[in-house]
Amino acid sequence: MKNKTSTPDLNLTSNERIYLESPSIFKPKKILNFNTKGLKIYTFKAGFKKGNKDLLIIIFDKLVNTASVYSKTSTPSAPIIWDKKYNKGKTKALIVNSGNANAHTGKKGIDIINSYVMFLSKILNCKKSEILVSSTGVIGELFKPELIIKQIKKISKNKSGKIIEAAKAIMTTDTYPKLSNKKFILNRKRYNIFGIAKGSGMINPNMGTMLVYLFIEPYISKNNLKKLINENLDNTFNAITVDSDTSTSDTLALFSLDQSKINLNTNKNFNIVSSAISAIMKDLSLQVVKDGEGLTKLVQVNILKASSKNQAKKIAFSIANSPLVKTAISGQDANWGRIIMAIGKTQEKIQQNKIKISFGSNILCEKGSIYKKINYKKISNYMKNNIVIINVELGLGNDSFTVHGNDLTHEYIRINGDYRS
Amino acid sequence: MKNKTSTPDLNLTSNERIYLESPSIFKPKKILNFNTKGLKIYTFKAGFKKGNKDLLIIIFDKLVNTASVYSKTSTPSAPIIWDKKYNKGKTKALIVNSGNANAHTGKKGIDIINSYVMFLSKILNCKKSEILVSSTGVIGELFKPELIIKQIKKISKNKSGKIIEAAKAIMTTDTYPKLSNKKFILNRKRYNIFGIAKGSGMINPNMGTMLVYLFIEPYISKNNLKKLINENLDNTFNAITVDSDTSTSDTLALFSLDQSKINLNTNKNFNIVSSAISAIMKDLSLQVVKDGEGLTKLVQVNILKASSKNQAKKIAFSIANSPLVKTAISGQDANWGRIIMAIGKTQEKIQQNKIKISFGSNILCEKGSIYKKINYKKISNYMKNNIVIINVELGLGNDSFTVHGNDLTHEYIRINGDYRS
Repeated sequence: MKNKTSTPDLNLTSNERIYLESPSIFKPKKILNFNTKGLKIYTFKAGFKKGNKDLLIIIFDKLVNTASVYSKTSTPSAPIIWDKKYNKGKTKALIVNSGNANAHTGKKGIDIINSYVMFLSKILNCKKSEILVSSTGVIGELFKPELIIKQIKKISKNKSGKIIEAAKAIMTTDTYPKLSNKKFILNRKRYNIFGIAKGSGMINPNMGTMLVYLFIEPYISKNNLKKLINENLDNTFNAITVDSDTSTSDTLALFSLDQSKINLNTNKNFNIVSSAISAIMKDLSLQVVKDGEGLTKLVQVNILKASSKNQAKKIAFSIANSPLVKTAISGQDANWGRIIMAIGKTQEKIQQNKIKISFGSNILCEKGSIYKKINYKKISNYMKNNIVIINVELGLGNDSFTVHGNDLTHEYIRINGDYRS
Repeated sequence: MKNKTSTPDLNLTSNERIYLESPSIFKPKKILNFNTKGLKIYTFKAGFKKGNKDLLIIIFDKLVNTASVYSKTSTPSAPIIWDKKYNKGKTKALIVNSGNANAHTGKKGIDIINSYVMFLSKILNCKKSEILVSSTGVIGELFKPELIIKQIKKISKNKSGKIIEAAKAIMTTDTYPKLSNKKFILNRKRYNIFGIAKGSGMINPNMGTMLVYLFIEPYISKNNLKKLINENLDNTFNAITVDSDTSTSDTLALFSLDQSKINLNTNKNFNIVSSAISAIMKDLSLQVVKDGEGLTKLVQVNILKASSKNQAKKIAFSIANSPLVKTAISGQDANWGRIIMAIGKTQEKIQQNKIKISFGSNILCEKGSIYKKINYKKISNYMKNNIVIINVELGLGNDSFTVHGNDLTHEYIRINGDYRS
């Protein structure tokens, strides 16, 4: 292990570093209108909310393999109940509306889905189990399936839209659309993975977080799709938090567009695809967290030298979710005492005299008490940055975990106090 | 079981109801300068913070029996480490400073305590194990023991102060002093219990919460003191939350002043004393929560008909700590969908179609979906109240739990963003 005390090991890839340290972190990423062969995109103003488009329908050219993960909540939305019950990993179409979550709507919520899914499945001549559905927005309100059916009727007349329109149609309090595109090369051939995501409140993962749809060009079996998601979830969407609240609607789905064949039977090939999936999931998850409701700063919490990955993760989330840590950061106060508090409240077995804390490269505490040579001027400047990196070395072992979160601001209160009014 | 749907069973005693429904909930309680025989109170401006008094020294007339409970944090402050190590349930004096928590100060923090405790113990001719210490305030900063020693030297010249001064000297971001006095009658004789408390941020109990000192006039054995605390902690200080953060310094101590003898060997007598202790703990814990940082509304969350008390408690805290629930309440929005979300994120095994939610007596959802006859006008008026009561019936069993919390406001952000600057 490295042991340079002034530059703690952040476990960042160079890409992550560039992403995190980019001065444009608070601007939407350059919009890419990449190739989306294998699917058709339709977006509509269906009337779930005022003004913007609020309905996305994607129709796949083929019946595509799919793997998906859902919120671990014990109060799942009707679409999650539906998808888990019916979808068997073969998908012909995806329907997503934003503005109404169809959550806690009981049997009626399921009936609503049944109506619009049956309608589309007849048109597409597919089974209802081959249509995947999601809804995001206000919980507990019913809506008329006709809102969606009316738009389905228009599909034949519309031409396919761009991926950016898909990303926009699923937004709620998001301030910009989230999309990403990665390429990977296998046996000298180039393949695309692309994806869209939404989310900005109620974000604290417990599996897949928010709505995320990923599309990979080559044919991949259902089992391998599942494996590819599970291998990459923990360090991407399960490593971000905006407000510690977990949505009833979190969904992540990976579709294989079956545009060509690849061989995933070797470890080498599997790893090439897996790291491309990892990159796109990391990129989209960071796009989500940097659009967290009301944030002024992105916060990266690195727990290093923990006795287990689980311990590192628990402590990282405790820090990233602490209202007192989050408000200190929005107040540009390097209040490391609150980090100590957040470590302690996990009740994890640690050794206080081994804890070392730095903000960026500025050490604040080591060997169990305040660092003797704190450079208050330097740290005060550091806290003005848009990105604050908190490093905690526990001195117990070799495990680490990184969580991305953000600060807690007046704007968060405003957005969430006024959301429905 | 009662089954009247419009008036859910809140499990409130009539006293609790009066307390919660009092229009003066946001005003400090009428200050009582009750009898405090058996101890001397000294308060000082020691220089831990600007302006107000910040040091309390209580000296008991006798060596008194004591029982105490502390934060379950894994990063306890030096005073907690000290008290747990030395105090054996016999106390001659209590020293509390506010403004510096002496937390995460390592061996030096212990040395600081040793200095001022040794100084006082020589004057009082007692053992150092007979002096109980607490500190509250900023974490991680060292201070000179002379700050306290200098004031100890003045004790012999000062006369004993009033209990209100003790309550004031331990305040940090509290907006008013918290004190309480209860009487109980045993065998036709009247006895006093009185207490003081402080706290307003970093409050989510994991045992004793914040600083709480309770004094009971008659002689009670150490074991019975311990039993009296443990019997009442769960429904008082362990049933409140301000911001889900747990202090490194939480301490609750109960001192028996040995002013008379009582017989606690019968269940009946023990219960009389226990319910008096319960009342004073409930009163002080509600005083603490209604002084939560930045609050505009007190929130009572009642989980009813749960399958276990543990389940009820977990769900109650999940609701009371959810930033989305708390901001909805500050925005006067009866957003019951966020209650559903907060129930779900506990991952407790529940049945969605049995959940019933009401705000006050206004039903919002039942049988798994929105209530048909919601009176929006009535509920909108209800949400303007200073006290919002959220009732969740799970329809699973007979267990219940009540948590008191508050809303999340701009003012909380302001207080905690600016705390040290």
